[in-house]
Amino acid sequence: MSILFASTADSAKDWAAALGEYDLPLQLKVWPDMGDPDAVEYAVVAKPPPGLLASLPNLKAILSLWAGVDHITCDPDWPRHIPIYRMVEPGLTLGMVEFVLSQVLNLHLGNYDFLDNARRRVWNNAMRGPYGLEPLVGDRTVGILGLGEMGGNVAKGLVRAGFPVLGWARSRKSIDGVDCLSGPDGFDEILARSEILVNLLPLTPVTENILNAASFAKMRAGAALVNVGRGQHIVDGDLINALDRGHLSRAVLDVFRVEPLPDDHPFWTHPKVTVYPHVGSITRVESGTAALAESIRKLLDGDTPGGLFDPDRGY
Amino acid sequence: MSILFASTADSAKDWAAALGEYDLPLQLKVWPDMGDPDAVEYAVVAKPPPGLLASLPNLKAILSLWAGVDHITCDPDWPRHIPIYRMVEPGLTLGMVEFVLSQVLNLHLGNYDFLDNARRRVWNNAMRGPYGLEPLVGDRTVGILGLGEMGGNVAKGLVRAGFPVLGWARSRKSIDGVDCLSGPDGFDEILARSEILVNLLPLTPVTENILNAASFAKMRAGAALVNVGRGQHIVDGDLINALDRGHLSRAVLDVFRVEPLPDDHPFWTHPKVTVYPHVGSITRVESGTAALAESIRKLLDGDTPGGLFDPDRGY
Repeated sequence: MSILFASTADSAKDWAAALGEYDLPLQLKVWPDMGDPDAVEYAVVAKPPPGLLASLPNLKAILSLWAGVDHITCDPDWPRHIPIYRMVEPGLTLGMVEFVLSQVLNLHLGNYDFLDNARRRVWNNAMRGPYGLEPLVGDRTVGILGLGEMGGNVAKGLVRAGFPVLGWARSRKSIDGVDCLSGPDGFDEILARSEILVNLLPLTPVTENILNAASFAKMRAGAALVNVGRGQHIVDGDLINALDRGHLSRAVLDVFRVEPLPDDHPFWTHPKVTVYPHVGSITRVESGTAALAESIRKLLDGDTPGGLFDPDRGY
Repeated sequence: MSILFASTADSAKDWAAALGEYDLPLQLKVWPDMGDPDAVEYAVVAKPPPGLLASLPNLKAILSLWAGVDHITCDPDWPRHIPIYRMVEPGLTLGMVEFVLSQVLNLHLGNYDFLDNARRRVWNNAMRGPYGLEPLVGDRTVGILGLGEMGGNVAKGLVRAGFPVLGWARSRKSIDGVDCLSGPDGFDEILARSEILVNLLPLTPVTENILNAASFAKMRAGAALVNVGRGQHIVDGDLINALDRGHLSRAVLDVFRVEPLPDDHPFWTHPKVTVYPHVGSITRVESGTAALAESIRKLLDGDTPGGLFDPDRGY
């Protein structure tokens, strides 16, 4: 019996080596050197080659190296009867909390406007509004779309930093210090009230294109957007439109429909769009392999690890 | 008897109006319409015109609108026998905590490198080091030079955000969670250990030029610098040298020897220098005038307000 590590990502070798150190009671095979397909019971995957998972007749579970599972379910042949476990590990979550806090502070403080000016050698320190009207974090409302492992912890981190925080999720959540909303009315409310809106929704058929012209129109005038969910959440042209007419003040984007972002995409050069190359957070090898090893041990013991993907919810 | 409000800063009118609302039991005069110089007992000042303070024979106290007092003591004729009170108000301090946290996070996460790449449409997300070796805030040591009202609160804010924090001050301080150093040995130690060094020292004859070639050489290779103290703390050419030879990785500068930063200053265009136009924090009119009114009431009652400037220490 074996564990197959199948990744087409750059970091595959480091991960396989780190996982090998856990002495799990199964042979560890690293794709493409997969040995006997019949022997594979567990597949640990990051962007696995399409069709690979369907070719493993005795597969019992799929463990994702990443928090999202769209890199698995985009394979038209993914075996729908096999449970998928999303990556839940503290490094990935903490990294996202740090990245979002940095972006929310940058937007709150107008840092990107100062940087734009600095490139033109313009010294203007009156941009943060009339003296005395400059809000501190306690006066700046931040909204978080998505309150799962990532969004929930990001919301808590922003509360700790002193921001008033709104959160929105499909089902009503309860998080200390966060004004939790849900449903369509809650969605409209978070759009209307947030000065900085952070998208951390999972990508599902329901959430795809959720940030479109209609949503942007409901957002507070002058609000800013941070997208660390997925590129497919945003209708790119609608966002550019909302920025061009000045309704939204800025967008910080870390994820895109096509990655790397194509060289001719207007986001690269738009004066109100700040592009990051999908660095919101990464799974850390050390804490990530520890989480994988624990999940596999639970599966071997007949227990259910955390992070079970629900195809009906889409995450 | 009167209070003279004397400011050559842009915001003078707003401040004078807000202070007027406090109904202090003295007439409020706004320079240049100062009335009888003999009547002025208290002067509230921001960059007062040189010689003005010396021309007030019955002056009892000078109240600075800002945290630093160099805008007063740079006047060769400032009346050295009159006590000066520095501005201590929560808005100014909180604003600095927010700004420094944003800059420390930006440096920690490599955000400025990603922004440099984005301007050239370069997508490179492997810059944060080999997978799995990417430090979280808990692994990133930040040093704070200066542990007064500003530095002490900034240090606490960084501790709350999860950073290991070192602090250095002339005399040994004690702050929960901060490894407090002092003296020349402590100075060398904070330089050697900090991955991100934040300057919040007061400007005094002792601290002027304290960040020079010798200090930079003692800093950890690859370290980054944030200057939110005063421009005169840094020997500009020495900093450029340390950046050019790659010993320091980046400098985020908010204060300069001459402000606005002259158009031909090399900081504007240096690829490893990020220029902000002295926006680290500002005194907020609302909380600042409340602090001023309280100080004046204390003076009238014969009490001593906080923030007394000590000419021997230089702050």
